[in-house]
Amino acid sequence: MFLHRKETIMPVKVGTPDARFGQYLLEQFGGATGELTAALQYWVQSFHVTNAAIRDMLQDIALEEFSHLEMVGQLIVQHTAKLDQTPVYDAPLFQMKGVGPHLVDSQGSAWTAAYVQEGGNVVRDLRCNIAAEAGARQTYEALINRCDDEGTRKVLVHLLTREITHANMFMKALDSMGKLDNPMFGAVQPDDTVNIVFNLSQGDDHRGPWNEGTMFDGQKINYVENPEPRGGLPPAPVNNDDEAPSIVPVK
Amino acid sequence: MFLHRKETIMPVKVGTPDARFGQYLLEQFGGATGELTAALQYWVQSFHVTNAAIRDMLQDIALEEFSHLEMVGQLIVQHTAKLDQTPVYDAPLFQMKGVGPHLVDSQGSAWTAAYVQEGGNVVRDLRCNIAAEAGARQTYEALINRCDDEGTRKVLVHLLTREITHANMFMKALDSMGKLDNPMFGAVQPDDTVNIVFNLSQGDDHRGPWNEGTMFDGQKINYVENPEPRGGLPPAPVNNDDEAPSIVPVK
Amino acid sequence: MFLHRKETIMPVKVGTPDARFGQYLLEQFGGATGELTAALQYWVQSFHVTNAAIRDMLQDIALEEFSHLEMVGQLIVQHTAKLDQTPVYDAPLFQMKGVGPHLVDSQGSAWTAAYVQEGGNVVRDLRCNIAAEAGARQTYEALINRCDDEGTRKVLVHLLTREITHANMFMKALDSMGKLDNPMFGAVQPDDTVNIVFNLSQGDDHRGPWNEGTMFDGQKINYVENPEPRGGLPPAPVNNDDEAPSIVPVK
Amino acid sequence: MFLHRKETIMPVKVGTPDARFGQYLLEQFGGATGELTAALQYWVQSFHVTNAAIRDMLQDIALEEFSHLEMVGQLIVQHTAKLDQTPVYDAPLFQMKGVGPHLVDSQGSAWTAAYVQEGGNVVRDLRCNIAAEAGARQTYEALINRCDDEGTRKVLVHLLTREITHANMFMKALDSMGKLDNPMFGAVQPDDTVNIVFNLSQGDDHRGPWNEGTMFDGQKINYVENPEPRGGLPPAPVNNDDEAPSIVPVK
Amino acid sequence: MFLHRKETIMPVKVGTPDARFGQYLLEQFGGATGELTAALQYWVQSFHVTNAAIRDMLQDIALEEFSHLEMVGQLIVQHTAKLDQTPVYDAPLFQMKGVGPHLVDSQGSAWTAAYVQEGGNVVRDLRCNIAAEAGARQTYEALINRCDDEGTRKVLVHLLTREITHANMFMKALDSMGKLDNPMFGAVQPDDTVNIVFNLSQGDDHRGPWNEGTMFDGQKINYVENPEPRGGLPPAPVNNDDEAPSIVPVK
Amino acid sequence: MFLHRKETIMPVKVGTPDARFGQYLLEQFGGATGELTAALQYWVQSFHVTNAAIRDMLQDIALEEFSHLEMVGQLIVQHTAKLDQTPVYDAPLFQMKGVGPHLVDSQGSAWTAAYVQEGGNVVRDLRCNIAAEAGARQTYEALINRCDDEGTRKVLVHLLTREITHANMFMKALDSMGKLDNPMFGAVQPDDTVNIVFNLSQGDDHRGPWNEGTMFDGQKINYVENPEPRGGLPPAPVNNDDEAPSIVPVK
Repeated sequence: MFLHRKETIMPVKVGTPDARFGQYLLEQFGGATGELTAALQYWVQSFHVTNAAIRDMLQDIALEEFSHLEMVGQLIVQHTAKLDQTPVYDAPLFQMKGVGPHLVDSQGSAWTAAYVQEGGNVVRDLRCNIAAEAGARQTYEALINRCDDEGTRKVLVHLLTREITHANMFMKALDSMGKLDNPMFGAVQPDDTVNIVFNLSQGDDHRGPWNEGTMFDGQKINYVENPEPRGGLPPAPVNNDDEAPSIVPVK
Repeated sequence: MFLHRKETIMPVKVGTPDARFGQYLLEQFGGATGELTAALQYWVQSFHVTNAAIRDMLQDIALEEFSHLEMVGQLIVQHTAKLDQTPVYDAPLFQMKGVGPHLVDSQGSAWTAAYVQEGGNVVRDLRCNIAAEAGARQTYEALINRCDDEGTRKVLVHLLTREITHANMFMKALDSMGKLDNPMFGAVQPDDTVNIVFNLSQGDDHRGPWNEGTMFDGQKINYVENPEPRGGLPPAPVNNDDEAPSIVPVK
Repeated sequence: MFLHRKETIMPVKVGTPDARFGQYLLEQFGGATGELTAALQYWVQSFHVTNAAIRDMLQDIALEEFSHLEMVGQLIVQHTAKLDQTPVYDAPLFQMKGVGPHLVDSQGSAWTAAYVQEGGNVVRDLRCNIAAEAGARQTYEALINRCDDEGTRKVLVHLLTREITHANMFMKALDSMGKLDNPMFGAVQPDDTVNIVFNLSQGDDHRGPWNEGTMFDGQKINYVENPEPRGGLPPAPVNNDDEAPSIVPVK
Repeated sequence: MFLHRKETIMPVKVGTPDARFGQYLLEQFGGATGELTAALQYWVQSFHVTNAAIRDMLQDIALEEFSHLEMVGQLIVQHTAKLDQTPVYDAPLFQMKGVGPHLVDSQGSAWTAAYVQEGGNVVRDLRCNIAAEAGARQTYEALINRCDDEGTRKVLVHLLTREITHANMFMKALDSMGKLDNPMFGAVQPDDTVNIVFNLSQGDDHRGPWNEGTMFDGQKINYVENPEPRGGLPPAPVNNDDEAPSIVPVK
Repeated sequence: MFLHRKETIMPVKVGTPDARFGQYLLEQFGGATGELTAALQYWVQSFHVTNAAIRDMLQDIALEEFSHLEMVGQLIVQHTAKLDQTPVYDAPLFQMKGVGPHLVDSQGSAWTAAYVQEGGNVVRDLRCNIAAEAGARQTYEALINRCDDEGTRKVLVHLLTREITHANMFMKALDSMGKLDNPMFGAVQPDDTVNIVFNLSQGDDHRGPWNEGTMFDGQKINYVENPEPRGGLPPAPVNNDDEAPSIVPVK
Repeated sequence: MFLHRKETIMPVKVGTPDARFGQYLLEQFGGATGELTAALQYWVQSFHVTNAAIRDMLQDIALEEFSHLEMVGQLIVQHTAKLDQTPVYDAPLFQMKGVGPHLVDSQGSAWTAAYVQEGGNVVRDLRCNIAAEAGARQTYEALINRCDDEGTRKVLVHLLTREITHANMFMKALDSMGKLDNPMFGAVQPDDTVNIVFNLSQGDDHRGPWNEGTMFDGQKINYVENPEPRGGLPPAPVNNDDEAPSIVPVK
């Protein structure tokens, strides 16, 4: 069961409203890297994760992300408070949809669950969460770099900070399963090509720990400088061109 | 410049065509966790990554993923080769769109670039790639578990294997920057809440290395069992209700 | 600030798991008429509504809808608990994405914020909410009619019931503003065509209180049986065809 | 069968073309609250509504909305007539896609049928239509407030007017079924929680006719100030984590 | 101005309702190749085409496509007339959304204006229309091949027939401009690579009139069997990695 | 198998970076008419086309389009190289997502496979490709007309040129099958309405080779100036309104 308190975690006080900056802020309300993506991703994962402790962690963080969505929304409400004094061709999204946050990104694209990555395995879920935190942190840095309102910046730095905290938590959880520095997981054993690295983009080639030396499990990496196909010519597709006989229904 | 050889990396030979299984395979052709997502994600990242060695790695792997897309497509071509002998209400997607692969997932949803995560920072990019590999691996395991054609299964195990190889490469690259077990990156310093963990979902609470002990940088974690809002009541939104005065254009 | 209690509002106990029915249930988890649509619609509205009492009502109901999302998710978790015993071509969505709920509808389409209707005016918002409740109620009835598990049905009837309660609340709020049986709202006065009704689809024509008698404000309805255009021939578009001169950049 | 007359219902005469304002106008051509949404929503509903009189009403109004789509399109054609004299970074959508209307909103997002609400029950349909009219009216008001061309404004006021007329018609139809001030419809009886109202968002709480007094059917509202979950701890999900045994295909 | 007559162009009489086939029919109601795509594509084009005769043709055909949408909708209404006798796990889309057509394709994906191709030039528009007609014809053939109801088949053959008629019309219009067998159009002159053909996919190479002999304008085709890049190594991207200095706002 | 050379086909050298023009260029990277659409459309078609020579042609051109995608990406990288000196409210997409290309169009809408047209028949595929080339050419002309950087313009003219080359190839292939000036293809014979043309949009009517004279096969066109419906009144839909009895599950 969800509950709500009509106060934010931290004070949200915008100094100088700027509806144009409010439009940028939508990126973290209804955008790919925004708080809604994080909140729903962790929340949905919590339904299928068997381990009760990790489920608890996912729900704790999901709830904080919903609370962060609220804080970003409050920033946007305040930044659009003087929309009637904003030149008519600025902040077009708010001019059309009204003041306050909407579930779109800074370019006006509607939020889609295609942003959410989850399902099937807790290791997969946690790796997706570390990625989600990195994306959110990155957008907050972009916003902070373009922000000159002190009150807004303070909130944005807090929100960026919490993404680091959450990344730490997801990394610790992965580490406790031995999956932080181990690419393997799941029930299927890889075949004997697992230590091969192909040089398929040629010119200005480079070597580094990812294509020389050993893998995390100690296997020697086998670097193939000039890969050749070994699949032969694939079979021709069945005829479904102009001259093809009609398909007769099989019921 | 891209080149193509009309052979696959490994042989692709389906034993018994099954258009219904072909529809499942679409998940890795035009689905969220599929080869197109991986190929385009790494390829697009390669344009903005400054480090030439990592850019080379991203392009090598992107090219392999394009080649994997081709292999999944070949599986689907062969699995739909007897569509005219498939009962009319099975494999509805191919019944309507024709044999061979299409850029949709197993449920018929069109591929969207909303699946792709990239931009702004190489650490963010690499974390997203580890997540993408985990998602792809997970779907391959789901397919393998539901597959009883030996030829198909051999290809799927190879494709799953390569996702592990790629995950190893991305992890090695992150590790070489000191970012595999370090949640911090970027230019903004976190504020003083970075070591706080909130217990916002209550009941059946658990503790683990993510909410007790220390963070990766050694800071002591501060667990708040009963968090209270500290933001006060947010300001009321501006009036934009029924009684609101009309906005006068400011040009 | 959001909080969560790890219990549902009402007990959720599925008798006989059926992954195929679980797929139907997704319609109310990640579908157009589902609980996520309702929760986010009311929540987002609460940011821009000036009236504190209606804002409170919107937040109370939004929180309940989040809690209902949780209940639908719990139904799906339980209905997919025996997925490993489900024939491989049934419940294809869970076969690919894993057990538990996902943010898609019963056809596998990702949830999109295009489902959400809000913005600009509280009367508009409340009318959208009455529509949202009607859609949710309708889908619950469809699910109940197709459900033969008693435990599931009990939860679905409760969820349907609450949509009626919420519809009652939104209607009461509209009524308190005099907008339940009054089509007018906002600051723009209609022109003199407001009482005209056009018969544009002809054949098998019918009359009813919507095209005869009076409007809610008492104006006599003017029914036009054979409407004629009064706009003349619209001006030709500017030339942008093959022969058009190139546009020269104006900077 | 559809027919068309090459004249608009009312004259459409733009005084001073402004491609930037043309981009705003797209909101009502290819946007969520636009004429296409209304036309298609009512048209699609007309296929499943049994009552011939209401079906006739839905088709009459749908046809008018198609005719309004034409008028909005004519406004946009005229507003983009001087695109070659528009500074190159203004009206970017037309700069790329050419003059005249396109099926996108003012932010360039493609129209999607996810905007359309219909299906299953005529009461549900009519409630959705009242919501659609309210959304359309709201956007017209936003456009009128930002418009300083008299010819354009006259057309916009007419289009806003007609939304009020249509809202009146839909309300009259609902009223004739006794459903305008009655939240109940459909065949399922609610359970005994129908008169309970939960205070789930706490702080700055308010009471109003929606959470005190009686419901429309006279039942006393039961306001629960401090709701407690009554669902117990939900059952743990089935194991589908890392350690889970593989699923064996059941055919 | 649009008008409607409550009769279809041709009789629509389904013999044996089959809700599962009704779901297939959605492909031509709300699918990519369906009547809505055609109707809206030609209609939107008609706004920007300068030539009055071609504009008239586009509008005549658009109106017929709207009338065809109506006929497909009537087929679906009749095929879903016995949904209450359809096994509960068949035709899941109608089970959830109700009888009659909906604006989705046979897989349940919502119609999107991304299907529509138009803008900028009448030659481009007409070429897109020939493509649209080919797609529609193809899906009608797929439906006819899977249909065993005589009444339905008769309507489908008529609809397929009309796509051929329309294709003929669009081809005739292009031909009257000299653009049917001429790839050139528009105001920009091509550079001197226009007659080069690259062999970029190698192995099992073939020659045909597209890569040997002459182009339509008589130029000799220059076939490059082993293309080499001539672009040199592209410049490194600007530094936007981890170590990059923060961007300072430039206002 | 795909290979890559780290050089572009032609040199890509931007003179004066302009991030705002970079945003326009996204239209051909991640937009509807862009290189990704072309590359993937031809590539996917190549899987189901039976004719080996045409399959080879499709793959050759697909590979070139991937290489063009790379060139457009290089243009965007260079145009965003001075983003830190771009005023903060210009080029908002790059301000939020970082420098370099992204898989969105110039308005920020994510690329979707709904843009891709393919399937079922090689004639249909080739007609779609001619349309795709026309759309790409049109957008390149729009970009060239708005471009004042000589280096950029040179690349854009090359890319436009190649679309003409490809259109020539697709037309030659169609011509070799006798389908360039013949609307017929496929296995279904049209009915006897194939030579009828309806005047459904009335007023300012025009005649031309598409609605007078003969069709390509010599049949006389039958122009119907005042079409009448011949379908009678369609049957009423089944009752699914408020009063409808519940559907009982049929399993």
